[in-house]
Amino acid sequence: MNYDEAALLARIRSAFPAFQDGVGIGDDAAIFRNPAALAITTDMLIEDVDFTAAIPLSFVAVKSLAVNLSDLAAMGAKPEAFLLSLGLPEWALSSFDRFVESLSAEAARSGVALIGGDLSAAAKLTISITAIGSVPPSGALLRSGARPGDRIYLSRPIGGSAAGLSLLQRGWTVHESGVINPPAGTNFGYAQREFAAAAIRRQIAPMAEVELGQKLLASGEVTSCIDLSDGLSIDLKRLCDASSCGALIDRDRLPPFPDLIANAAALGIDVEAAVLHGGEEYALLFTSRLRESELSAKCGTPVMSIGRMRSGTGVFLETDGREAGLPASGFDHFRRDP
Amino acid sequence: MNYDEAALLARIRSAFPAFQDGVGIGDDAAIFRNPAALAITTDMLIEDVDFTAAIPLSFVAVKSLAVNLSDLAAMGAKPEAFLLSLGLPEWALSSFDRFVESLSAEAARSGVALIGGDLSAAAKLTISITAIGSVPPSGALLRSGARPGDRIYLSRPIGGSAAGLSLLQRGWTVHESGVINPPAGTNFGYAQREFAAAAIRRQIAPMAEVELGQKLLASGEVTSCIDLSDGLSIDLKRLCDASSCGALIDRDRLPPFPDLIANAAALGIDVEAAVLHGGEEYALLFTSRLRESELSAKCGTPVMSIGRMRSGTGVFLETDGREAGLPASGFDHFRRDP
Repeated sequence: MNYDEAALLARIRSAFPAFQDGVGIGDDAAIFRNPAALAITTDMLIEDVDFTAAIPLSFVAVKSLAVNLSDLAAMGAKPEAFLLSLGLPEWALSSFDRFVESLSAEAARSGVALIGGDLSAAAKLTISITAIGSVPPSGALLRSGARPGDRIYLSRPIGGSAAGLSLLQRGWTVHESGVINPPAGTNFGYAQREFAAAAIRRQIAPMAEVELGQKLLASGEVTSCIDLSDGLSIDLKRLCDASSCGALIDRDRLPPFPDLIANAAALGIDVEAAVLHGGEEYALLFTSRLRESELSAKCGTPVMSIGRMRSGTGVFLETDGREAGLPASGFDHFRRDP
Repeated sequence: MNYDEAALLARIRSAFPAFQDGVGIGDDAAIFRNPAALAITTDMLIEDVDFTAAIPLSFVAVKSLAVNLSDLAAMGAKPEAFLLSLGLPEWALSSFDRFVESLSAEAARSGVALIGGDLSAAAKLTISITAIGSVPPSGALLRSGARPGDRIYLSRPIGGSAAGLSLLQRGWTVHESGVINPPAGTNFGYAQREFAAAAIRRQIAPMAEVELGQKLLASGEVTSCIDLSDGLSIDLKRLCDASSCGALIDRDRLPPFPDLIANAAALGIDVEAAVLHGGEEYALLFTSRLRESELSAKCGTPVMSIGRMRSGTGVFLETDGREAGLPASGFDHFRRDP
């Protein structure tokens, strides 16, 4: 049997009636309009799937909340509260305090209250968070509002998280203190080590665009939005599909993570794969009729135009004046490599 | 190191500020009063902790939703929606359709819409559900409202779920069709087999008291409520602690699951342990000043008085006119047996 995530999700959707009182499956968070406008989202992180025991639990805590807050940000919601379910193996108990303290600090920074949860024993550390945000009665940012001609924006440079993951998989380590070290026996220069540390931090402690999401919604000028959780190619395709549009990306305008290009060769990182398909970025990807300078001014922070929506279907990449289809090859939990 | 669930929970509570806009940690579900009165709860079921691969996934699906709906019932909330996160191992993929169909049917029966979720690969099947219910602006049923003199009630006889678990652990099996069979080579009579099947069904497909919970709240006569998830002794202690009261239970009034006493000896079930400490019942435990006949009439269904709240602390059991402390020894994921 061969399953992929989209097929599993389609199976679930087909088995349940559509939610009548708001926005159900298919966007970054559910909007619960009756009796009020709340955004509710959930994400689960599992040991040896989403992280390994080599990552200090204080970082796992930050990430487990950030991935949920990023879903709220993509709706333009203001984070209000969250619920925490933990499946705890023996090994995680000794670091439990550090996990809780780190999560608490991140929650305080983001202004969310812990309002419930569940504790269980487990063979693998499992962290399931449900986050709840408020949205104005006028509505939320959805994936489905983009129209042909809209400009496509990124909130920040991308590719750092995938670069960081690649480094961790090749022996770079993170100490409990946050210090990041190269594999034993290697000899990297200062610039490479600095870049590597920044990329690994982006991977293990991503920042959700919580404030920007609310600004984008408040601007009234953003037609659609999604967060980059699985990769630009696959997440832009999701936005295109939800909006019944196609997209053309200009490769020259894609903003790579700082110093990625300069250090990639020495560190063995595939820049193209990291930028186009790298997951766990948690930048926002959104659309607007406004020009870059206009939208940046409206939001009070620079945003980066990378292409245009257009009629038709599919995501295309323009390189040196030539167009080619961009295959959606971001992360999929259930895809088997051939 | 020695942890128990209460200590872990206390650690979490101490690390987070109290939720200001409603009811946070410490009740069966969180109430989100700002901007509206919603009850939100979450529960996670993990393979080899909460169930084994020997239980058909259709039953696991029903139970994973029921345990969440039971938390809503304990608040008097009307179930509205839920989110579903799944960690899926290879083996579960081939039964995925049955799981989804069963969950869909149970959701339809309970009137809840699936409004979001998350899918992940996992080594062990992990099901994390967040359920959302609505409560009237006047409030919800809480654990904390019981007063000395209040009568203590159960919604139905108890001990069946623990009896069912005991039978499953000693070789009784559940076929995908729902047929329940005794261990090979045993020779039980018809009455014993019928009882065993009923007890195992209570364990693998518990019923949440969704309608009763709403009736209890609407009656205006119920001072506190909790669902029996971990066992009468421990859940009554939680209710007592939240209400700053003690409790005295009359052993003669405790209602055992139908035919439990008649069949226990032949099937090797400890009646006392099943009734007093057995978990996963999902009956409601609640308090009221009204007499049994008055409250039953108000609710339109019989409820069972089992004792009285009183001043002081602790849960006591009266047997043949003699009182003894009832140790809270229900299920705890993190307790180590000595």
